[in-house]
Amino acid sequence: MSAPAAPPTEQMAVVLTESAADKLLPFATLVSGAIALGIRVDVFASYWGLLAFRKSPATSPSEVSPGHGEDGARLEQVLKAPKAPSWRGILQMAKSIGELHIYACSQSMELLGLKKEDLDPLVEGVTGVATFIDRTRYANVSYFV
Amino acid sequence: MSAPAAPPTEQMAVVLTESAADKLLPFATLVSGAIALGIRVDVFASYWGLLAFRKSPATSPSEVSPGHGEDGARLEQVLKAPKAPSWRGILQMAKSIGELHIYACSQSMELLGLKKEDLDPLVEGVTGVATFIDRTRYANVSYFV
Amino acid sequence: MSAPAAPPTEQMAVVLTESAADKLLPFATLVSGAIALGIRVDVFASYWGLLAFRKSPATSPSEVSPGHGEDGARLEQVLKAPKAPSWRGILQMAKSIGELHIYACSQSMELLGLKKEDLDPLVEGVTGVATFIDRTRYANVSYFV
Repeated sequence: MSAPAAPPTEQMAVVLTESAADKLLPFATLVSGAIALGIRVDVFASYWGLLAFRKSPATSPSEVSPGHGEDGARLEQVLKAPKAPSWRGILQMAKSIGELHIYACSQSMELLGLKKEDLDPLVEGVTGVATFIDRTRYANVSYFV
Repeated sequence: MSAPAAPPTEQMAVVLTESAADKLLPFATLVSGAIALGIRVDVFASYWGLLAFRKSPATSPSEVSPGHGEDGARLEQVLKAPKAPSWRGILQMAKSIGELHIYACSQSMELLGLKKEDLDPLVEGVTGVATFIDRTRYANVSYFV
Repeated sequence: MSAPAAPPTEQMAVVLTESAADKLLPFATLVSGAIALGIRVDVFASYWGLLAFRKSPATSPSEVSPGHGEDGARLEQVLKAPKAPSWRGILQMAKSIGELHIYACSQSMELLGLKKEDLDPLVEGVTGVATFIDRTRYANVSYFV
């Protein structure tokens, strides 16, 4: 009699293409919620999503997407406060307690003139899109941010 | 002999972070299409997605995202016509015929200084991200708008 | 004794609502990666996603979303180079080797005043949202771009 198979790990796949705080915060929050539930998260950072992890010049952690008028200006002020949530801090915490894997898209690294050493260590490697899709083809949920 | 189990309800999960008409209309249309097929829809409204449901000041139902030039201006004109589709009307209709559940993200409610009573009754409650992910971890399809 | 059933084709569902290069490139790259792995891809082009396929006036293949400052200007320059990747070329290649199906959203066709013949032949038909959701309700992964 064979032992019952371990249940497959649940997985969330995220393609990240944005660098503004109003996208990175809901993204980081989703990631941390999944990690808290024991769900593995694989992130494919491409285009502006790479800039979020660029060491220098770093993008501003409080800048929001254009087109949000007064509400946008108010959110930027709130995010500048010392106690404001930090998407980077949320991701670091998530990585320390669970399976969070962030890969940089090789095609957009080249277009943006970036090298692996230009990126925050939260990014664990550079990979092609087919590798990412193969790793996440059976993910439970998938989001394009 | 036990009766066959009822098939599990199909489910669509949506994280909504936008408030412009050119995002809310395809979002509402997706929701209504799913509801018409008997699929349950769970929505997590966060950041600008919350503003879509703010009672006052309400966002303009015809304003589109910046950066679309003449096409954007033309769509805004079309959406101001009396017979133009209304994302809010589409969601209300969907909720009246099926299982549409819209939750507000507790973290962004706090950052934006919003209370439950500031939001349209289409929003049925305020919840944390982990609760939303737990409710939608087996969703058939998932979209981040 | 019946023959074993063929494994169901894996499927990726994409709702495309953007027309800027910094969204169309990661979109086309995802599509081509899926096709390379033998995954069928169904795309629902709506709102600005339709403009990406409009023949005339065609959108610029190098224009990026607003709000990206110097990085945006630099990416536009890179995308104007003769050897730059072309999202349209990537999609054409993907369609020639695998199952890529792109449908135009009937509701937004009407709002934008477009007819089937105004669109690139990459778009194989005009369809309603319920048909799209029905076709993709068991997709392995789903993305809203």
